[in-house]
Amino acid sequence: MLSSSLRVALRPALLSNSCLGALKTRHVSTSELLRELGKITCDRDVSTNPNDLQQHGKDEGPHRVSEPQVVVFPQNKEQVAEVLKFCNRKRVPVVPFGSGSGLEGGASAPTGGVAIDLRSFTKILRVSPEDFDCTVEAGVTWRALNFFLRDRGLWFPVDPGADASLGGMCSTSASGTNAVRYGTMRENVLNLEVVLADGRIINTGGIQGRARKSAAGYNLTNLFVGSEGTLGIITAATLRLHAIPEKQVSAVVQFETPRAAIDTVVEILQNAVPIARVEFMDERTIQACNAYSKTSLEDKPTLMLEFNGSQTSVSEQIETVASICEDNGGTEFKWAEDQEERNLLWKARHSVFYATCAQRPNTKCYVTDVCVPISKLPELLAATKEDIDRSGVYGTVVGHVGDGNFHTMLLFDPKDPASFQVVHELGERMALKAIELDGTCTGEHGVGLGKKELLLKEHGSDCVSVMKSIKLALDPHNILNPTKIFD
Amino acid sequence: MLSSSLRVALRPALLSNSCLGALKTRHVSTSELLRELGKITCDRDVSTNPNDLQQHGKDEGPHRVSEPQVVVFPQNKEQVAEVLKFCNRKRVPVVPFGSGSGLEGGASAPTGGVAIDLRSFTKILRVSPEDFDCTVEAGVTWRALNFFLRDRGLWFPVDPGADASLGGMCSTSASGTNAVRYGTMRENVLNLEVVLADGRIINTGGIQGRARKSAAGYNLTNLFVGSEGTLGIITAATLRLHAIPEKQVSAVVQFETPRAAIDTVVEILQNAVPIARVEFMDERTIQACNAYSKTSLEDKPTLMLEFNGSQTSVSEQIETVASICEDNGGTEFKWAEDQEERNLLWKARHSVFYATCAQRPNTKCYVTDVCVPISKLPELLAATKEDIDRSGVYGTVVGHVGDGNFHTMLLFDPKDPASFQVVHELGERMALKAIELDGTCTGEHGVGLGKKELLLKEHGSDCVSVMKSIKLALDPHNILNPTKIFD
Repeated sequence: MLSSSLRVALRPALLSNSCLGALKTRHVSTSELLRELGKITCDRDVSTNPNDLQQHGKDEGPHRVSEPQVVVFPQNKEQVAEVLKFCNRKRVPVVPFGSGSGLEGGASAPTGGVAIDLRSFTKILRVSPEDFDCTVEAGVTWRALNFFLRDRGLWFPVDPGADASLGGMCSTSASGTNAVRYGTMRENVLNLEVVLADGRIINTGGIQGRARKSAAGYNLTNLFVGSEGTLGIITAATLRLHAIPEKQVSAVVQFETPRAAIDTVVEILQNAVPIARVEFMDERTIQACNAYSKTSLEDKPTLMLEFNGSQTSVSEQIETVASICEDNGGTEFKWAEDQEERNLLWKARHSVFYATCAQRPNTKCYVTDVCVPISKLPELLAATKEDIDRSGVYGTVVGHVGDGNFHTMLLFDPKDPASFQVVHELGERMALKAIELDGTCTGEHGVGLGKKELLLKEHGSDCVSVMKSIKLALDPHNILNPTKIFD
Repeated sequence: MLSSSLRVALRPALLSNSCLGALKTRHVSTSELLRELGKITCDRDVSTNPNDLQQHGKDEGPHRVSEPQVVVFPQNKEQVAEVLKFCNRKRVPVVPFGSGSGLEGGASAPTGGVAIDLRSFTKILRVSPEDFDCTVEAGVTWRALNFFLRDRGLWFPVDPGADASLGGMCSTSASGTNAVRYGTMRENVLNLEVVLADGRIINTGGIQGRARKSAAGYNLTNLFVGSEGTLGIITAATLRLHAIPEKQVSAVVQFETPRAAIDTVVEILQNAVPIARVEFMDERTIQACNAYSKTSLEDKPTLMLEFNGSQTSVSEQIETVASICEDNGGTEFKWAEDQEERNLLWKARHSVFYATCAQRPNTKCYVTDVCVPISKLPELLAATKEDIDRSGVYGTVVGHVGDGNFHTMLLFDPKDPASFQVVHELGERMALKAIELDGTCTGEHGVGLGKKELLLKEHGSDCVSVMKSIKLALDPHNILNPTKIFD
């Protein structure tokens, strides 16, 4: 992208980035970080406690724990800005930390430096029911927001399962079970408050912008959504809200083959049924759920469905979907109509990770996700299940199939590197197959440390070099979450 | 954003950008352009015909016509790439040209150079009905696409009114009457094929990516959507399609005051009615429509509505909306149920621009749009109408009010600069008021030449400098549509 003369000028900066580890230990000792960051916040908001360091170097994924040198707990965006100014001047790596529920090592600190924990950013700053939007600080979790909204007839539908912070969800472009109807974070963020590498604070969608749509300049909001902390630190987000539907009904239907379940989903979409959730679970996932969540379903490929809308609309959706299910050999629906039953059902779905882990004590779970055009799902699903079976690994397959998105959860022995290698290669093959089928190596988990090579395969080196040139333009010293997304 | 040493290195490039006009005439004569571009395409695909130059220097907006030196009509992306390589080497400005239906001067060539006309890019490359997506070349218009899709049960819902090319619609982040239900270009583009300033060709969403969602790297697709040709030339787009609804019904309802009409829209949204279109027209627009499109509506603030869905769902939506309209003093619905009547009605809506122009012969129309949170619409609408009345200008107000987006069309005498100044200042005041009310200076027309100062007001200088640093990273010699969005 850059002219050759510029490329020469920029090379020293690029080279120095690859030596950040060395710079860190050479120039900024932990004691200096403690002292200087303590001046910006207050001494008790900077920690080198081993528990803090250990907790902040990891997430819920299988990647190696890499601890930061210090953890800082700023109390407001101005303190975040001061921390970044200092770190930028001193070339200290900075890793933002929300709830630590990521899966691709985004919160890890392989080059040391400072973890910025946003746990104090828990204010819901504004809710405008008449405009269906709100502004929250980055540390607010989606569950806390929905708890706050519950009596206002409003909700925020993006549900990644774990009780993630909304700042983290913006960073990783999270989605979840409701995306088929309500979209992902990309469609539900109107504006972000971001602290840049040099400490400047911007609002990506206008200084106080919260218009439903805008054609004013580059869409920085959606550049920062999914940038995994590599372009700036998100301190607040303006989000779209939705009216709580008059009626919500959930159901379970089971099939003889995964193909029959997927064909059902394709037909539901072709019939333009505004389905709110449609989740696939393979027979092994059902076994794990029955054991862990005390459900009593048959060990068969299963769809978990949710219908939202008015009473009439929900009845009509159910009628259409029931008939499609029947045509594909599905069982009769098992219903969950009241709130308590619905909660139990979706709790079981959201507990699949823990249910899978519980199947083999002393193992760890390697979770990975891909997304393909829905017509390619049956082929990818069959290939993946066959590959898992062949490997002898215990693994479950679940997915937001309405989007063509699914996950495998593969158990490995954390003490045996060869065991990790086997599941890692399974994940790689699934991702490569997804790319081959016009899909993506990750629908919602992000690239982090784990999928850098796959990103390159998927996008090609020219496209990734465009991403890198944007990174370099916004963070010339590569202090922001270095080594994530690309090297 | 850049370190001070880098800033020094980059300054000469920045400075030279501001002298592009001089460089152009000094280094690359029109005859050289003709000769060199003729080698890349073939001689008949490069033109200096005065009609071609005049047609390519303007769009449908009121901005000054600035002609390119030559127009080139490449036949494929490889030729676009070669043209860009040449222009990048020689520092020649390049302005992409779709259908010329823009409104903010995006197609104008104030610094001369080459207009790249994509009229030969008319292939629909692929339609996947089972995945609800397609890939089209940039010159295909949305009407041509929908004509092609009509027998497949599918449609592409973004309708900016004019028969714009889909490449142009990507560039300006177009939307239109269906955005309230189906989203804008941002929500309906899955991937873009883009030729970069240096001639490299990338696919922003993966080499052959068409997953419904992705968390793989930066969201370049939505960076290029709305970038108005300043970051690359879009040569193809992969788009989401939607199932044609079983039933589509349109209706007109009229109110005593604009406030009553807007309150109705707010209540429709609060009741989570999945309305497909809800368009506001003020009484003056209705007068113009009656005269131009031979409709026979009362001269009153009016909503034009469309309901999509199954028979049952449409009936229920209508029942809810009719009751809300009645509560707000609306008249009974005037129906348009069959395709022909619906077409007439929406044709009238889409002809408002020409209807307005027809009211005062020998005038030109200054169209501008803003978007605000819907609760702020009544205040902005009232202020704008009062301002128009006070000025003595003839102007109509119409809008996609479900999104909080509306347009004014203001007539001026093209021979009288003072007359232009009056309407321009009216537009500026409306945009400033929209920004003050947490909105944006443009919901769908873009910044182009006309709203650069407003962008700065809306986003602040730090945010705009981030946009500029991205521009510089991707187009270091500022050859791509220079002087648009920012200086």
